[in-house]
Amino acid sequence: MAERKNWQIVLASRPEGEPRPENFRMIEVEAAKAGDGQMLLRTLWLSLDPYMRGRISAARSYARPVEIGEVMVGGAVSEVVESRNAAFKPGDFVVGYTGWQEYALSNGRGLRKVDPDAAPLSTALGVLGMPGQTAYCGLLLIGQPKPGETVAVAAASGAVGSVVGQLAKLKGARAVGIAGGPEKCRYLLDELGFDAAVDHRAPDFKQALAAACPDGIDVYFENVGGAVWDAVFPLLNTFARVPVCGMVAHYNDTALPPGPDRTSQLMRAILSKRMTVRGFLVADFADQTEPFLRDMAAWVREGKIKYREDVIEGLEAAPEGLIGLLKGRNFGKLLVRVAR
Amino acid sequence: MAERKNWQIVLASRPEGEPRPENFRMIEVEAAKAGDGQMLLRTLWLSLDPYMRGRISAARSYARPVEIGEVMVGGAVSEVVESRNAAFKPGDFVVGYTGWQEYALSNGRGLRKVDPDAAPLSTALGVLGMPGQTAYCGLLLIGQPKPGETVAVAAASGAVGSVVGQLAKLKGARAVGIAGGPEKCRYLLDELGFDAAVDHRAPDFKQALAAACPDGIDVYFENVGGAVWDAVFPLLNTFARVPVCGMVAHYNDTALPPGPDRTSQLMRAILSKRMTVRGFLVADFADQTEPFLRDMAAWVREGKIKYREDVIEGLEAAPEGLIGLLKGRNFGKLLVRVAR
Repeated sequence: MAERKNWQIVLASRPEGEPRPENFRMIEVEAAKAGDGQMLLRTLWLSLDPYMRGRISAARSYARPVEIGEVMVGGAVSEVVESRNAAFKPGDFVVGYTGWQEYALSNGRGLRKVDPDAAPLSTALGVLGMPGQTAYCGLLLIGQPKPGETVAVAAASGAVGSVVGQLAKLKGARAVGIAGGPEKCRYLLDELGFDAAVDHRAPDFKQALAAACPDGIDVYFENVGGAVWDAVFPLLNTFARVPVCGMVAHYNDTALPPGPDRTSQLMRAILSKRMTVRGFLVADFADQTEPFLRDMAAWVREGKIKYREDVIEGLEAAPEGLIGLLKGRNFGKLLVRVAR
Repeated sequence: MAERKNWQIVLASRPEGEPRPENFRMIEVEAAKAGDGQMLLRTLWLSLDPYMRGRISAARSYARPVEIGEVMVGGAVSEVVESRNAAFKPGDFVVGYTGWQEYALSNGRGLRKVDPDAAPLSTALGVLGMPGQTAYCGLLLIGQPKPGETVAVAAASGAVGSVVGQLAKLKGARAVGIAGGPEKCRYLLDELGFDAAVDHRAPDFKQALAAACPDGIDVYFENVGGAVWDAVFPLLNTFARVPVCGMVAHYNDTALPPGPDRTSQLMRAILSKRMTVRGFLVADFADQTEPFLRDMAAWVREGKIKYREDVIEGLEAAPEGLIGLLKGRNFGKLLVRVAR
C-alpha cells in the first residue's frame, strides 16, 4: 500500500502584532502509522478560534505556546480511518484537538465520539462544542442572569456570543448584542431574537449602547476588550457580573495603550459597584460537558438556540481564515472544510 | 432640667485631595428630646474608618455622600440615656451608625445591643464589629483560602487586615502581611503570628514581597491599591481570588495617574490566570452577622484572634484622626473616646 501523504500547517515564525500568512507554512509529510492503542484520524472539519492567537505568542499564558515548526493547535472533527484502539473503530467520528493537518495520530485521550445522526458533524466544533460550552458555562455559572436583567455580549454574532445572547433570552433576561456592521446586527435581531443590537463600528456606538441599555448592564460577557469595554464600563450596574472569556481586541497588541492609567478607576468601580470580574476557560468546567451537551442538544433540536456557520474550503485557507477572524471578518462560527 | 448640650462635627466643605481640618467644623447644638419610640444615646466610642473618605466626596458611590453642614457619618458605641422605645432601656449599650456627635437620637433601627461583660465595648467597632465582619466575609466567602495557599493582605496591622491574616492562619494558609514601617511589621510577626511581613515603605518592597511569596499569591485581600497592587499583581497565581475591600491609596486622588493604560493588562491577566476579582461591602453580607459574632467571639476568647486599638481622646480630635488614618498613621483599630 502506498504511503499516505499528510499536509500540515506549522508555525513558521511568531507574529509581531497581527499575524501574517508567512507566519505559517504548509508542509507535506508521510502520515504516521497507527501503533498499538493508536488510531489514524482523517480531519473533516477544522475549527478556527480566537484563542489561537494567544497560542502562537511566546508569552506565558494558560497553555504552552505552539513551538516554531510545530503543527498548529486546533480542534477538529475527524473520521477514524485506521484503529488499533479497542474503543474506536474505522468509520467512527470524533472531536478533539488534533491540529491543522489532514491526518492525525491519536491514542484516544481527549477525544469524544460524535454521533453523525444527532446533529451535523460540524456543530461539535460550534454550538455543541467548545464555543457553545464556553457560552453555557460562562453565562450560566459566572454571569448567572436573572429574569429581567440586561445581558450584553460583544462579538455577538460569533460562535460564543450568539449562544450567550440566546441563553440570556432563555433565562428571561434582556439580550443586547454588540457586533461589527449592520448586517450582523440585523441577524442578531431578526434571526436570533436579541432585544437590541449595536454596531461597534458606528460613530455613535457609545451613545447607541447606552440607549440600548436603559437599565444599565447586569451581566457583560467579555469577549473583546478595547473600545467595547470602554463603552460598557460606565453602564455596569451594582452587583454586575463580568465573565471574562476573551480579549480579542488586544491579542495583536504590541504595547500598552497611552495613558492615563485607568487601572485604579476599574478597581474602584469593582469596589463601589461590588462587581465580580472573573476570567475562565471552558477547560476549567470539564465537569459540565455532560449537562451542557444534554441541554444544548435539546435546545438546538427545539429551535431555541440557532447557529450560523462560516465555512472556508481547504486546509491551505486556514491561515487567512484565522487572520480574518481576529479582525471580525467571519460571520458565524468559522470552520475550515478539510475533507468531505 | 437644663437642656443638654450636644457637640457635633459636621462637614464644612468637600476636600480636594487629602482632607484638611477645615473641611470639618465642630458645632454646639441642643440635644434633641426622645420622642415616642425614640431614645437618646450618649456616644462613648466613635470609630474612624477609611470608607469615610468616600462619603465626604460628592462622587456617586454605594452610599449617598454626607452633605455640607450634615453631621459626619460614623459607627459608634453608645449608652442609652433616655428611652421611649420598649426594646431599649437606659443603661443599655448599643452599636450603630450614629455619627460624629456626643448625643444622638435613634428609633432603634440599625442598632445592635452590646453586652459589656462579654468583651470590651470598643471591640463592637473593631474585631467584633464592622471591620472584623468585613475581614470574615471577604476572606472566608470570597477569598476562600485553602490549607497551604498564600494569602496576602495590605494595611495588615489595621482593623481589617489584622483579622484577615489571622483568619488565613486559622484556615491553614500562609499569611503575608504588608504594612508601613518596621514596627508594624514586627507586630505582625511577633504578636499576630503572620508568616511574613513586608514593609511597603522600604525601597526594595517589590523584591521583598516576591521573596516573601515564593509560591505566589492565591488570595490577595485588597485594601489599598496603588504601589502595593503593582507589587502584588505579577505574583498572583492561576485561580487567584481578589476580594476588593478598599482602595485607600486612591481615595485622595484628584486625577488618574499617567500612562500607559494598564487596564487591558489587568483584564488579560484576569483571563489567562482565571482570576476572580470581586468588590464587596460588609453590608452585602448582613445575613452573616450572627455566624460572624458567634465564631469571632469564640476565637477572641480563645486567644486565636488578637486585636490592637489605637485610641485618641475627645470628639474634637476626630478630624485629625481620620486625616492620619488615610496616611496610615494609626497602629491598630482607630477609635475616638468621646465619653467615659
